[in-house]
Amino acid sequence: MRLLARHPGFRVVRATSGRLAGTPLRDACPWLDTSLELSSFDPADPGAEFVLLAQENGFAMRHAATLIDAGARVVDLSADHRLRDPEAYRAYYKAEPAPEGHGAVYGLPELGERDAIRSARLVANPGCHVTAAVLALLPLVRAGRVTGTPVIDTKTGASGAGRARKESEYLLSEALNDVRAYGVVGHRHTPEIEQALGGLPIRFTPHILPMPRGLLATVAVPVSDGADLDALYREFYADAATVRVVAHPPTTKATLGTARCDVWATYDARLGMAVVCAALDNLGKGAAAAAIQNLNLMAGYEEAEGLPLDGLWP
Amino acid sequence: MRLLARHPGFRVVRATSGRLAGTPLRDACPWLDTSLELSSFDPADPGAEFVLLAQENGFAMRHAATLIDAGARVVDLSADHRLRDPEAYRAYYKAEPAPEGHGAVYGLPELGERDAIRSARLVANPGCHVTAAVLALLPLVRAGRVTGTPVIDTKTGASGAGRARKESEYLLSEALNDVRAYGVVGHRHTPEIEQALGGLPIRFTPHILPMPRGLLATVAVPVSDGADLDALYREFYADAATVRVVAHPPTTKATLGTARCDVWATYDARLGMAVVCAALDNLGKGAAAAAIQNLNLMAGYEEAEGLPLDGLWP
Amino acid sequence: MRLLARHPGFRVVRATSGRLAGTPLRDACPWLDTSLELSSFDPADPGAEFVLLAQENGFAMRHAATLIDAGARVVDLSADHRLRDPEAYRAYYKAEPAPEGHGAVYGLPELGERDAIRSARLVANPGCHVTAAVLALLPLVRAGRVTGTPVIDTKTGASGAGRARKESEYLLSEALNDVRAYGVVGHRHTPEIEQALGGLPIRFTPHILPMPRGLLATVAVPVSDGADLDALYREFYADAATVRVVAHPPTTKATLGTARCDVWATYDARLGMAVVCAALDNLGKGAAAAAIQNLNLMAGYEEAEGLPLDGLWP
Amino acid sequence: MRLLARHPGFRVVRATSGRLAGTPLRDACPWLDTSLELSSFDPADPGAEFVLLAQENGFAMRHAATLIDAGARVVDLSADHRLRDPEAYRAYYKAEPAPEGHGAVYGLPELGERDAIRSARLVANPGCHVTAAVLALLPLVRAGRVTGTPVIDTKTGASGAGRARKESEYLLSEALNDVRAYGVVGHRHTPEIEQALGGLPIRFTPHILPMPRGLLATVAVPVSDGADLDALYREFYADAATVRVVAHPPTTKATLGTARCDVWATYDARLGMAVVCAALDNLGKGAAAAAIQNLNLMAGYEEAEGLPLDGLWP
Repeated sequence: MRLLARHPGFRVVRATSGRLAGTPLRDACPWLDTSLELSSFDPADPGAEFVLLAQENGFAMRHAATLIDAGARVVDLSADHRLRDPEAYRAYYKAEPAPEGHGAVYGLPELGERDAIRSARLVANPGCHVTAAVLALLPLVRAGRVTGTPVIDTKTGASGAGRARKESEYLLSEALNDVRAYGVVGHRHTPEIEQALGGLPIRFTPHILPMPRGLLATVAVPVSDGADLDALYREFYADAATVRVVAHPPTTKATLGTARCDVWATYDARLGMAVVCAALDNLGKGAAAAAIQNLNLMAGYEEAEGLPLDGLWP
Repeated sequence: MRLLARHPGFRVVRATSGRLAGTPLRDACPWLDTSLELSSFDPADPGAEFVLLAQENGFAMRHAATLIDAGARVVDLSADHRLRDPEAYRAYYKAEPAPEGHGAVYGLPELGERDAIRSARLVANPGCHVTAAVLALLPLVRAGRVTGTPVIDTKTGASGAGRARKESEYLLSEALNDVRAYGVVGHRHTPEIEQALGGLPIRFTPHILPMPRGLLATVAVPVSDGADLDALYREFYADAATVRVVAHPPTTKATLGTARCDVWATYDARLGMAVVCAALDNLGKGAAAAAIQNLNLMAGYEEAEGLPLDGLWP
Repeated sequence: MRLLARHPGFRVVRATSGRLAGTPLRDACPWLDTSLELSSFDPADPGAEFVLLAQENGFAMRHAATLIDAGARVVDLSADHRLRDPEAYRAYYKAEPAPEGHGAVYGLPELGERDAIRSARLVANPGCHVTAAVLALLPLVRAGRVTGTPVIDTKTGASGAGRARKESEYLLSEALNDVRAYGVVGHRHTPEIEQALGGLPIRFTPHILPMPRGLLATVAVPVSDGADLDALYREFYADAATVRVVAHPPTTKATLGTARCDVWATYDARLGMAVVCAALDNLGKGAAAAAIQNLNLMAGYEEAEGLPLDGLWP
Repeated sequence: MRLLARHPGFRVVRATSGRLAGTPLRDACPWLDTSLELSSFDPADPGAEFVLLAQENGFAMRHAATLIDAGARVVDLSADHRLRDPEAYRAYYKAEPAPEGHGAVYGLPELGERDAIRSARLVANPGCHVTAAVLALLPLVRAGRVTGTPVIDTKTGASGAGRARKESEYLLSEALNDVRAYGVVGHRHTPEIEQALGGLPIRFTPHILPMPRGLLATVAVPVSDGADLDALYREFYADAATVRVVAHPPTTKATLGTARCDVWATYDARLGMAVVCAALDNLGKGAAAAAIQNLNLMAGYEEAEGLPLDGLWP
């Protein structure tokens, strides 16, 4: 809502809620300066050209086909349409995948399939850990330099868990001054990262940090050639509208509120390993801003149209 | 548990839980290095000389008499036995008070009634805002210098809300980077502060801060005489085992994990008002350490026996 | 820079730095996605229609006249031109005030003197505590309801101290988990608040909180009439572009990154006092966004043109 | 000071400071409830049986021999005496090592050389990252299961940088809501970890987190055998006084203020890699508590005598 309010090309005509239909959006979200009223969700009557779905897993799977039949083009921020391999979906999500994946296109433009996104009826928006990990590794993978298993360690703010989590570990009292790993084996973003990297197996450990937003991926990976990593990365991302190759280890805070991902690569010659860091806002380039980047492509705008690229500092 | 583990005079023989009886305490509280197993609560069989009750309001009221009949001496950390005026209790708690207050003694030793605490069968442990506000104002009130309504503004960490609160405003994601007032009119600590100050009406606004622990009370109050406040306070608290009069505005962090309350007073001559700050750990001098301070009196130990007075820094 | 980058009417043509002239702005501020290079400051050659000065006290006083002579119109974010009373300036700033105040206009549009701002050559941007305190009290003062000394307690994030402060108390290690009062008697925003309120004496205590941004003012004030405060405030701020009267105690986080100030008033009938809270982003409505609000008036735009009103959440 | 104040066997007789000699310790450290006055440091007159040195690198190297000659037994918390290989010291510290290392014993009791520590005149206290990384890997290394390069990713609170760091990145305003990697290639703890693991080369990336205390090491390492890791670790640490093998990924907060290190290991069968997490308080088991653990051995006390093992929660 915040991002779309300042976009020159889109207008939000509906915001829906199963539980709060009929109440002013501002009562539910006092940080928004809006006069919109929450309405019920009716997939057969989307009432808009584009629909963003940001619900728990399973919701988009139930409604995507109806929305598309009703003429809408959809960006799904859940995990329902991300995996192309039905077996991987069953293994990691313990549920049946969408039939034929509802024809979804995977919405990470930096993978290079922008035309598919432009014409898609349904776009699967990537997971936040996935975007950071993939943007960190993609130039090395595409250059054919990777010679071993990447070890990916991500650190993310607590907002990734959502508003509905009720475990005491998400309370400020118990989460501040703390860091911990979670989903150490079998985290659902594992197959999604591997899919985006062409099947390369990866070791992935996410961590939760005492901050609301931000995600940093640190990757150590054996490479055949560690020369000129900075140049390799700068060339690879020369045309990327929202990726910046930076000169120092990136900080998540520099990306706060933005659509940017900052990437930095170096070489540990002693071990023959590249070390790459990628920082983004897990709710920006890791979620909402990425969705609007996809919307921009779908609607024919410039890829970063209307998206903030300057971080809120400090 | 943490405080009692290092106390030379007390041994914890039971920890009870309605929901988790039978599980090792360490599974519920992995920060404790203990082999104790949680058991059921049976007020007719306390199994110990002293019982600390740290439950929601209403629990102690139901069980205090049984515990006392069974021979235990009780410190109640809830609000059940704090107010002496039944009408005030009804007005602020919307419930019936304990008959004759179960004979409870109010457990703020700095009020000067240590002998009553020493011989009490039931001690009502004060509220955290109350302790800070009262320790800030007491020297002025006892000196007869107060000439107008004290305005008390407190700022406290989120732990005061407890582990069970499920509103999203207590999530780290939503509480970090935020401050707000709550309970602005009619907060339940209001009559308790007034009672401890001999009936002086006060204006009281509590605030919640983005930190787990700590409580700061800032008080502005018209006074008849603003001379030598530092000396007045130092003399008043000369024998207080856990109150320190400090030379600069106190910080909550300096009291982290301790039984200390740091107090500082100054005079705004332009307005004829004293400004006093009192800092403490809302779970230390504001709750658990205060309870053990009372236990010490009840068991005949020195008032600060076994209590930490050095803060965890940084 | 972040706010102006998305403003439809202004273009940043220069950013200056005494120490870093010649280096890319992005190297100094990696959160900005800009190609601007830092240049030297030359008040005789401003090179722009409008100049924003955000320097330590004393800097604007030295250069304002030169800038104005060179044709620029200036918004000064320092304290140099805020106080109209030379004696108050000398007493609180221990320095000589600007001669005739350089003809500055005080830039708080909600005071009602928008025409003066529109035509000003030099605007003094208000202090962050001042804006919150004054917006909290102004409706009551203008309605003639105030009958005693307002007690103003503000809580603000650490960014108010700036990047140059080197005391260890501003380090994250020592400031996190902490709150303290500072400048308890004689804080420099005191005379500025009193000036904006028509000379009403106020008691003012600022506090520093463990968060980067955000400022909350809580005011308790005796009033002659506490009826219909919400209506009084809504009417008073009906046309204010960046002030919202809200239905619950406001939170600073809801204003994060915005030009908004959220105000809420209630009445403590027991004591005959109004209690008012005002929340804003100390670097938004408390500084940079307020400066652009003034720029908008000076340049003939709508008052909130280009300013974000939706907060970054969470 | 906080830890020693509650130790039954030690008494602090002197605290020294080059800059603050003559001032009460409490003025410099208001969180300490002490009447000690800071004095000058004179290595020829230690005035105590044991001396703890907690100074910048180079200080202990200059004074260790004098202190030992004067009869003191020394625990050095700096890096001066940690590396046994003079070449490694020169390469990583760009300085000359101590001659013969001043005969220092490396003070990580879990390595198994407790007798050497017991009789040492000089103990080199390990680095915080080192302790966590080594305790995570040691059982696998000693069991001969490691078959590839461990990738060690540590996350630590900002206190590791000390009080003297003046870069703006350590300010709360700029460090809160942020995470970043630092010292990505060539961090000085690298050779120390490798030395403790018998020369095993490791990949090591430290990160700084928005919290004062706490350190988590996450290690991914190829192993020949992933069976029964929990049993392997429990057996290995069965007699360790301050290491706990836990059933879930450990949290740094559970170790806050303690001498504990919590370790957890699991196996990623798909990749043939073990993943191990070790959490500790970087100023507890990572520094001061580890020093006292060494002091206990040197003075003939139980290894965990007087050390807190219950964390401050929340």
